[in-house]
Amino acid sequence: MPMWQIYHPENAFTDEDKKEIAQKITGIYESFLPRFYVNVFFQALSKSNFYIGGEPTDDFVRIVIDHIARAIKDPVEQKQFLRGCAHILSPYVAERGYRWELNVDETPFDLWTLNGFKPPLPNTPAGIKWRLENKPSSYDES
Amino acid sequence: MPMWQIYHPENAFTDEDKKEIAQKITGIYESFLPRFYVNVFFQALSKSNFYIGGEPTDDFVRIVIDHIARAIKDPVEQKQFLRGCAHILSPYVAERGYRWELNVDETPFDLWTLNGFKPPLPNTPAGIKWRLENKPSSYDES
Amino acid sequence: MPMWQIYHPENAFTDEDKKEIAQKITGIYESFLPRFYVNVFFQALSKSNFYIGGEPTDDFVRIVIDHIARAIKDPVEQKQFLRGCAHILSPYVAERGYRWELNVDETPFDLWTLNGFKPPLPNTPAGIKWRLENKPSSYDES
Repeated sequence: MPMWQIYHPENAFTDEDKKEIAQKITGIYESFLPRFYVNVFFQALSKSNFYIGGEPTDDFVRIVIDHIARAIKDPVEQKQFLRGCAHILSPYVAERGYRWELNVDETPFDLWTLNGFKPPLPNTPAGIKWRLENKPSSYDES
Repeated sequence: MPMWQIYHPENAFTDEDKKEIAQKITGIYESFLPRFYVNVFFQALSKSNFYIGGEPTDDFVRIVIDHIARAIKDPVEQKQFLRGCAHILSPYVAERGYRWELNVDETPFDLWTLNGFKPPLPNTPAGIKWRLENKPSSYDES
Repeated sequence: MPMWQIYHPENAFTDEDKKEIAQKITGIYESFLPRFYVNVFFQALSKSNFYIGGEPTDDFVRIVIDHIARAIKDPVEQKQFLRGCAHILSPYVAERGYRWELNVDETPFDLWTLNGFKPPLPNTPAGIKWRLENKPSSYDES
């Protein structure tokens, strides 16, 4: 987490596009989260499996993001986050003529593990270690 | 949003079936939401990727719906909505011998954008414009 | 529900592995839920569609679980559940060198149906019947 699922028309993005998008998304979070927390999955949908307003569609990109609940706390941060997403996605989506939609779901912190470890809070010694090493490691979870 | 994901056995639905299902789903919402808000995605799963009760399965349809939180407020509306879903799906699912399951998740209104715009509230001037034009447009979001 | 979605690299699991994993997951719940409640879906992602920390990835397994809200109530039960998941997954994931991440989302009980029926509460006569027969049947929902 964060986990981004990007549903897109077939051939909307090259492998190079996808890597760039994933790296820019990871950049949104890297000042405060370990890079390996960020999941970006691309799922191509053919026109006969992708309906917007009841019509088969090949010009729409749908982004679904899962965040830990209350990771983005107040309306100012929310607007900033959504503006940051639009800024990153625009060259690949709006500027290529794709319509797009994005929403964030929020899920409980206490039901989340990485390699079986409960993620440490940011700015604790373990949280800093995970971020610097870009991998999980055992720590005193009690 | 609403976003419907329909996980189904391979060959369960023709392209014509899928379009009809998507149009009927869109019809549930069209008296109060712009048609282009409604996303319906079909995802076929082969028997070796689809387990119900631990058994590989090719007779089950699983529908996952994301709604904005509190879009359906009280128990009476909830029952009506679920009955409406069953009514629409029955000819394609139950009447063809498929078992099926449906659930709705609820996600925050404030973390949702369309073409980068925050959706206007229904029955505001912008909300009415979006619905009549069936597309998003800029408006005073403040 | 519970619904498990397992995103994995291509060729990470054989069909036999997938069946074993699905059966062990079903076993977590079978003392209190009907077996047919448990959905396990496998979705293979090629390296060019699967990014962790901005890098194309073929050594990561991502598990997303949807539960009914408050199905797991307190911190002790939560830890037990997460430890149970790790125990089951370890031979297929960690012991084969895959990194992995798991999280649970919670969704509303009142917006969930099986074959169009609202699931009965556990330990009611209908709840016991569904579990013993391993299928839904009509009952007095009022």
